[in-house]
Amino acid sequence: MSILPVLSDEEAGAEARAVFDDIRATRNTDFVNNFWRVLANDPALLARTWQGLKEVMAPGSIDSLVKEMIYVAVSVTNGCEYCIRSHTAAARAKGMSDHQLMELLAVVGAANETNRLVNGLQVPLDEAFLGEGAP
Amino acid sequence: MSILPVLSDEEAGAEARAVFDDIRATRNTDFVNNFWRVLANDPALLARTWQGLKEVMAPGSIDSLVKEMIYVAVSVTNGCEYCIRSHTAAARAKGMSDHQLMELLAVVGAANETNRLVNGLQVPLDEAFLGEGAP
Amino acid sequence: MSILPVLSDEEAGAEARAVFDDIRATRNTDFVNNFWRVLANDPALLARTWQGLKEVMAPGSIDSLVKEMIYVAVSVTNGCEYCIRSHTAAARAKGMSDHQLMELLAVVGAANETNRLVNGLQVPLDEAFLGEGAP
Amino acid sequence: MSILPVLSDEEAGAEARAVFDDIRATRNTDFVNNFWRVLANDPALLARTWQGLKEVMAPGSIDSLVKEMIYVAVSVTNGCEYCIRSHTAAARAKGMSDHQLMELLAVVGAANETNRLVNGLQVPLDEAFLGEGAP
Amino acid sequence: MSILPVLSDEEAGAEARAVFDDIRATRNTDFVNNFWRVLANDPALLARTWQGLKEVMAPGSIDSLVKEMIYVAVSVTNGCEYCIRSHTAAARAKGMSDHQLMELLAVVGAANETNRLVNGLQVPLDEAFLGEGAP
Amino acid sequence: MSILPVLSDEEAGAEARAVFDDIRATRNTDFVNNFWRVLANDPALLARTWQGLKEVMAPGSIDSLVKEMIYVAVSVTNGCEYCIRSHTAAARAKGMSDHQLMELLAVVGAANETNRLVNGLQVPLDEAFLGEGAP
Repeated sequence: MSILPVLSDEEAGAEARAVFDDIRATRNTDFVNNFWRVLANDPALLARTWQGLKEVMAPGSIDSLVKEMIYVAVSVTNGCEYCIRSHTAAARAKGMSDHQLMELLAVVGAANETNRLVNGLQVPLDEAFLGEGAP
Repeated sequence: MSILPVLSDEEAGAEARAVFDDIRATRNTDFVNNFWRVLANDPALLARTWQGLKEVMAPGSIDSLVKEMIYVAVSVTNGCEYCIRSHTAAARAKGMSDHQLMELLAVVGAANETNRLVNGLQVPLDEAFLGEGAP
Repeated sequence: MSILPVLSDEEAGAEARAVFDDIRATRNTDFVNNFWRVLANDPALLARTWQGLKEVMAPGSIDSLVKEMIYVAVSVTNGCEYCIRSHTAAARAKGMSDHQLMELLAVVGAANETNRLVNGLQVPLDEAFLGEGAP
Repeated sequence: MSILPVLSDEEAGAEARAVFDDIRATRNTDFVNNFWRVLANDPALLARTWQGLKEVMAPGSIDSLVKEMIYVAVSVTNGCEYCIRSHTAAARAKGMSDHQLMELLAVVGAANETNRLVNGLQVPLDEAFLGEGAP
Repeated sequence: MSILPVLSDEEAGAEARAVFDDIRATRNTDFVNNFWRVLANDPALLARTWQGLKEVMAPGSIDSLVKEMIYVAVSVTNGCEYCIRSHTAAARAKGMSDHQLMELLAVVGAANETNRLVNGLQVPLDEAFLGEGAP
Repeated sequence: MSILPVLSDEEAGAEARAVFDDIRATRNTDFVNNFWRVLANDPALLARTWQGLKEVMAPGSIDSLVKEMIYVAVSVTNGCEYCIRSHTAAARAKGMSDHQLMELLAVVGAANETNRLVNGLQVPLDEAFLGEGAP
């Protein structure tokens, strides 16, 4: 049970319905998932979040499947079930195979492990890794 | 200052030096970074960690640059500076542009944001996202 | 199913029951929620945790509704469902509107996002932000 | 040292400079902190992030000081030094006293503690905390 | 419902079944829990993960019950329900009493609390805590 | 530089000095580390935090060295440098060897890794792990 209602198209106001329509058009589907339907309780937050996500997840210098895999990596690290399931489904819809999923999770697991070995030992930065930026 | 010493080739024992040599051969460089030199205080842990990471990060059904980007995504989410800097450097060495880095970080930021919107609203799972597995 | 039993008033010992009574008196309700009933398996831990929380959450230089909102912000960041639901309910009981909840979550989402942009870019501290304290 | 350069007004392009100008106007100060100057390496990300944060942090049904305190609570939970220092400074500029800071941190600490007691005991949800939403 | 199938002995291939057999032999039980049965979708990842965990969790200079308690501490901090329940069960099977569980959780709670007090105040390192390592 | 001043014995008020004295007596040393000296800016928070930690970390059904190792495990998972360094030092003072430290970190690393494999695959709970508690 969500904390605020999951709004149907009828329950959502005009501003939220316009976002639902853009979601449908952008994704070429009739399906609007619960995340957006709960966010619709605050139409301005819904519109801003959808607009931001649409831009961030669009293919750019990183393709759209890789972006979904990065999204899954973050969600797995944070332990957000809804996010893991919805973006794993999205990655599969964009072509991720079961084997790619397993390789993705292996990297996520290894990074979470070695992050802690580094923390626990307080490994000092190699000068070679300092670079580009300033100051 | 690290919690255990950063071991030079001379200070490391034979088992650790053999791992250093495999790192050099695998990466085609003379450089062995501090992470491995601190892990060398426990040669068995060093060998196991290196062997695991070598397999996980090798190109497979996901290419090696994408794996580095996934690694960075996890490290950024966890806030591990050494890991962020070393794997951002590795991703750049494999061809990641500044613009790709920014797109990667934008996805990581958006995922961390929407993970919390989902948590805070306790969005219920859409049936469409349940699938493959059993039971 | 909890890992240790949820103790009724009858099952709890005298020390735990005294804490339950103080919870009822402090909150002006008959209801003692499961968190305290599971903690009651270790009456000393129950007493210490309740005493600490009672002091921390009492109105002081920050009012009690704002404290509940801060509590929700942490729980959302950590993804603790029980904590999110119980403290969202508490905040509502103290007057938080649905719109305030959405604004709260928007801030929590944005902070989680920008925290990672800062991590990923390793933004150097501005001198203006160093101040008050002294090592 | 940041991973991408901290851009001065001269180094930033016209699109980024326009954002810097809006930051100055909105905050009524000449100071543009490093976070924005590093984000300026991707002017579109800079503009989107600033626009979002400006809306989220503006006074609404939650006042602007409370929003800063919520931001600090998240950043402290995540351990982001830059974010902690910059938003603690912002909260102070808006009137947060040292005592309020300590009360804020006490709530953040207690929430992080009790979140883990709940996790470790797998406390079952009280029906009283299920409510509003649907389904 | 898991994201990939939970494989029975019959559904698992020969390589995965060999790992199941080693799990049974090592643990002296017929029971192979779901974690391994889902990992079996990638036999190489299954084998590597089991081999690593077998070595890490074996009694060494830290005994095997303490290792389970450390594992629980991490899982509680991360909020991973499956991990909390399975390793709490494992620790109990190795002799952890209910009172030890409560003491363990009290330490985990206090560490999560004081970690945030330290973050929020940006407490400077005492020289006394710098030591052993180099450079 | 800390966010609030590190108070010397002279700068601290009588209530805080009494806590410092109890720290010295309990630990049998003249040394009071910076964490307590910064907390001293809020004597009530200082007293409550010290009192709680003294009880939690005292030898009970879990010995005091194991408690320090659990504390380190949490701090490493959270990435709190001050906490890692101070409690690693404390564990060493209580007898933790370098090899035990490495074994501890290996468990912490493995738990962080497998927590994410479990998250990413959404492994369903085995009935065998449900038990003790009620309902």
